[in-house]
Amino acid sequence: MKIVVVGASGTLGRAVVAELEKNAENTVFRVGHSQGDMRVDLSDEASVDALFAQTGKVDAIIATTGNVFFGPLSEMTAEDFTLGLQDKLLGQVRLALKGQHFLNDGGSITLTSGIIADEPIGQGVNATSVNAALAGFVKAAACELQRGIRINLVSPTLLTESEAVYGPFFPGFESVPAARVALAFRRSVEGVQSGQVLKVGY
Amino acid sequence: MKIVVVGASGTLGRAVVAELEKNAENTVFRVGHSQGDMRVDLSDEASVDALFAQTGKVDAIIATTGNVFFGPLSEMTAEDFTLGLQDKLLGQVRLALKGQHFLNDGGSITLTSGIIADEPIGQGVNATSVNAALAGFVKAAACELQRGIRINLVSPTLLTESEAVYGPFFPGFESVPAARVALAFRRSVEGVQSGQVLKVGY
Ligand SMILES: NC(=O)c1ccc[n+]([C@@H]2O[C@H](COP(=O)([O-])OP(=O)(O)OC[C@H]3O[C@@H](n4cnc5c(N)ncnc54)[C@H](OP(=O)(O)O)[C@@H]3O)[C@@H](O)[C@H]2O)c1
Ligand SMILES: NC(=O)c1ccc[n+]([C@@H]2O[C@H](COP(=O)([O-])OP(=O)(O)OC[C@H]3O[C@@H](n4cnc5c(N)ncnc54)[C@H](OP(=O)(O)O)[C@@H]3O)[C@@H](O)[C@H]2O)c1
Repeated sequence: MKIVVVGASGTLGRAVVAELEKNAENTVFRVGHSQGDMRVDLSDEASVDALFAQTGKVDAIIATTGNVFFGPLSEMTAEDFTLGLQDKLLGQVRLALKGQHFLNDGGSITLTSGIIADEPIGQGVNATSVNAALAGFVKAAACELQRGIRINLVSPTLLTESEAVYGPFFPGFESVPAARVALAFRRSVEGVQSGQVLKVGY
Repeated sequence: MKIVVVGASGTLGRAVVAELEKNAENTVFRVGHSQGDMRVDLSDEASVDALFAQTGKVDAIIATTGNVFFGPLSEMTAEDFTLGLQDKLLGQVRLALKGQHFLNDGGSITLTSGIIADEPIGQGVNATSVNAALAGFVKAAACELQRGIRINLVSPTLLTESEAVYGPFFPGFESVPAARVALAFRRSVEGVQSGQVLKVGY
């Protein structure tokens, strides 16, 4: 399979690439914003067009990208809230909307959420909202995608590799190694399910 | 209680106002975009500031507003998808973020979703996403709101009053009179729950 991984240089993305490359039949295009085989800015329509012009038809599209706003609700503004809408939500949605037209029959799209979708943490209102929206998107899009194209969402708990940075915001949460989360991406790409949220480490 | 209803002139909003006014202790401010006791444009920061400058402190804030994009996934663009993010999602979120500072202790915020959050319909990907995001927002915001302030989301099925217009998009869905949905708003405003999705007619 030809597989596009946007966010391939990231903590999660590196593990996803490593897992997918265990299958010798997979060819992975490592895509990043500032590094990788190819470059894309998911906030820019023309940049996503240019990415697919380079890749041509593929069998799977993965995003392991996305920033959200963290900060107390009592000080949050609509502008703050927009950050996660434009970046993590709309960036991944844009990739999926454009990508559907560059997938071979039976191809798949796999996007990334996170446990805050289901378990709120302090200062995480934007993250919960954005991740919930992605779950809604995947659930509804699965019903309309054509030519056997599937779509799923992987929702990991805190990554063990990110504990040093984000751990203090996740009191009492277990972490999971990125390599375990990567299995869920392979399950989505090489499996048969659609419209699912694959939760890892909950 | 002093209660602000934004969207008071709408199909749902009219029923909500009528229900709340059954309690003689309630004073309802009817707020609309183009009509009502007061005017606001929820897409405009300054307009929402001006609304609360007029109302002063209140006990409950309700939104029965919000447009989303309807259209087939195969033709949807990121710009189309942005419509619901900016209007139904961010409009209500903006009202809540600003409104938290104008609520008396123990006050409440009640926003509006819809059954497409949970039951996708054809051409409804943007609606499912936006409504799911609102559920995430309410769930997380409830954990951070201070001074006993509560927040809930009312999610009705198709309104009976809207069957003539929207019925064809909802094959096999039951409809519910707006007056029944209005009870859920009163339950949110005069009750004790927080962080809940009050589903009506599911
Ligand atoms: N880390 C965790 O503990 C954790 C837990 C749960 C969920 N998640 C979710 O997993 C996802 C990835 O997290 P991560 O920690 O792996 O992030 P990360 O290490 O910061 O990696 C982010 C990746 O996204 C790329 N990127 C950034 N902006 C982009 C843009 N505008 N267009 C295209 N690509 C862009 C980066 O490319 P360049 O390197 O080329 O700039 C990089 O490859 C996020 O959605 C996050 O919320 C993370
Ligand atoms: N109708 C249904 O069957 C149904 C079912 C499930 C969920 N819902 C949801 O219920 C909500 C209300 O639906 P509805 O059918 O009652 O809508 P509606 O009849 O079109 O009423 C919309 C209301 O919102 C106000 N409004 C519009 N744009 C605004 C803005 N920018 N700022 C502030 N106020 C604005 C309008 O004010 P003016 O009149 O002054 O312009 C009007 O009062 C929506 O979120 C909808 O998705 C509806």
